[in-house]
Amino acid sequence: MNLFNNIMSQRIVISLDAMGGANAPRAVIEGASIALNKNPNLYFKIFGNQQLIGNLFEQFPILKENYEFIETGTYISDDEQPIKALKNGVNSSMRKAIDAVKENAAVACVSSGNTGALMVMAKLVLGELPGIKRPAIVGVVPNLNGGTVMLDLGANAECDETNLFQFALMGDCFAKIILDKKSPTIGLLNVGVEQIKGREIEKKTYNLLKKSGLNFIGYVEGHDLTKGVVDVVVTDGFSGNIVLKTAEGTARLLMQIMKQGFQNNLSSKIGGLLAKKSLKESFKSVDPNVNNGAMFIGVNGIVVKSHGGAEAIGFANAINVAYDLAQRNINQEIIKEFDILQGEMSLGQNIVEKIKKTSARILGIGS
Amino acid sequence: MNLFNNIMSQRIVISLDAMGGANAPRAVIEGASIALNKNPNLYFKIFGNQQLIGNLFEQFPILKENYEFIETGTYISDDEQPIKALKNGVNSSMRKAIDAVKENAAVACVSSGNTGALMVMAKLVLGELPGIKRPAIVGVVPNLNGGTVMLDLGANAECDETNLFQFALMGDCFAKIILDKKSPTIGLLNVGVEQIKGREIEKKTYNLLKKSGLNFIGYVEGHDLTKGVVDVVVTDGFSGNIVLKTAEGTARLLMQIMKQGFQNNLSSKIGGLLAKKSLKESFKSVDPNVNNGAMFIGVNGIVVKSHGGAEAIGFANAINVAYDLAQRNINQEIIKEFDILQGEMSLGQNIVEKIKKTSARILGIGS
Repeated sequence: MNLFNNIMSQRIVISLDAMGGANAPRAVIEGASIALNKNPNLYFKIFGNQQLIGNLFEQFPILKENYEFIETGTYISDDEQPIKALKNGVNSSMRKAIDAVKENAAVACVSSGNTGALMVMAKLVLGELPGIKRPAIVGVVPNLNGGTVMLDLGANAECDETNLFQFALMGDCFAKIILDKKSPTIGLLNVGVEQIKGREIEKKTYNLLKKSGLNFIGYVEGHDLTKGVVDVVVTDGFSGNIVLKTAEGTARLLMQIMKQGFQNNLSSKIGGLLAKKSLKESFKSVDPNVNNGAMFIGVNGIVVKSHGGAEAIGFANAINVAYDLAQRNINQEIIKEFDILQGEMSLGQNIVEKIKKTSARILGIGS
Repeated sequence: MNLFNNIMSQRIVISLDAMGGANAPRAVIEGASIALNKNPNLYFKIFGNQQLIGNLFEQFPILKENYEFIETGTYISDDEQPIKALKNGVNSSMRKAIDAVKENAAVACVSSGNTGALMVMAKLVLGELPGIKRPAIVGVVPNLNGGTVMLDLGANAECDETNLFQFALMGDCFAKIILDKKSPTIGLLNVGVEQIKGREIEKKTYNLLKKSGLNFIGYVEGHDLTKGVVDVVVTDGFSGNIVLKTAEGTARLLMQIMKQGFQNNLSSKIGGLLAKKSLKESFKSVDPNVNNGAMFIGVNGIVVKSHGGAEAIGFANAINVAYDLAQRNINQEIIKEFDILQGEMSLGQNIVEKIKKTSARILGIGS
């Protein structure tokens, strides 16, 4: 009994929205089984529609005794307006999965569903972390350098320098856990690396980050993301969103051209067959399923957004992200770091004030 | 003699900065010879340093009698600060090539050199087109739909809705000539296609474009660029620059992964050899050399910026862009369209004003 209690207490309970995304509910249930295989102390609270799930649970026997199913009946469709979803979706699988985090019945929740709906629900139900003004969407952009954390990927179209500064702080905590870096390097997205480049907001944020104590290395450009020049790229939600979608669109275009190139003639077709396995292996490093799992960072709870088109293996990776973030207490890390940086920065300002006053006294122009 | 005069009068004189870009001066001189082969009525005024050019002219005999070389001695380095270049580069090859346009000695100028320097010089020497508040950088982003015109690619980090509206107008004229479209479709870059999405500037610009008479189809997203959903994508210079660099970076990354994939083992190596020619052919459609040639649109003269890394074939394409823009009088087109749209829009505003006044009278709340 003691042993059983011990195992139970070590269990990481994650709530899953079984109904979100193009491949739901199969990708969710199968994804859960894949994640459980990797982390046997996972336990799932799965919210969804039994009729649509059918006998999926039985198809993945590893899940047995490692999940609880909660019938919700309704679910949020992918094209539902977030505000409507908030109003009408109180009993939806997505909402119930978030509620479970609020009620401490789960340490994190994962959904492949409607991004806007998930975001407004998470903010409403969980609220913000103390001191954090705006939650952001943070995720990993794949590259050959192990990936780069980027935020905001689209939660806040308009930001000020305080928002971007807090994004840097939260991105730092996220990268420490997800990229497993001790002191992640941080870059601010801009149109050039020289200090004179950019808008007012980049210049103001640069100055804040310079004296922050974070491992801030300065401005980075669009191509630095795919080069993996830094561990964390900070930008507003407008820029982050168009960068992410441009990268995805470009990747899709090139893959399409490559496939067409192999179809041109007999020689290229045979070449394609011979190289297929090896190419597949190489492209794995930038497979969106591998880096799947974005977080609504800054809300008072762990909410992970899986890509709407994620397959089972991708959903399993999103669960792994939620698992790691919960295991390593990301939100406690953010609160702690926030306190330290606030302290350091106010100390820094005091010093600047002191120097100013001293100089003024010496020059005889003030007290 | 008459025939000779006739040919001379039909000549399109383009000034070239022979010293700009990573492959100068060879790419410039060789590029000129390739362009001349396509358009025999081209004539070049080539500005540069004879010592560095050496015997390049003799290597491309087609150029004979179709160019004039002007020794300039100095040139602008790629890392020179634009303001310094403006101050110290009065006798540089870049500046002299722009001066030639100002003095009507050439109808257009082409340079692969320092973008910032070229831009500030072009603005200073040529000034803006009447009514145009801010010149922009416009270019073609490659896709399988014949390419999409995009602006601003980086001239103005911060813009207002009037700037973006004028970018749309100028992009329309550019697409008519370069994409050869009668009524180019225009999209405004945003984080989603719904009307509620985006920042204040997108909403304000949307409203201006909706009533503009341009073929405006609404918002487009990052991935719509590579899909070629519209002919022209309008955005501010911050967003345009990061989108362009992200697309370039992503393309480079995937090409690198593909090359690595072919190197993995014997089978993939043979496959690569068999497919090489066909793949090369397929990727031509998105080769940056093919779509080379961005314009500083909105200045009172035609200044074409070739990619800094352009090879001879790429530089030739930039000359072709300058040739087409000059032949079809882009700047006259812009002035004409500007007048028409201004007229239509002020007419539209009059109608709105009239309706307001009438309603007010009916409701008894005004004159």
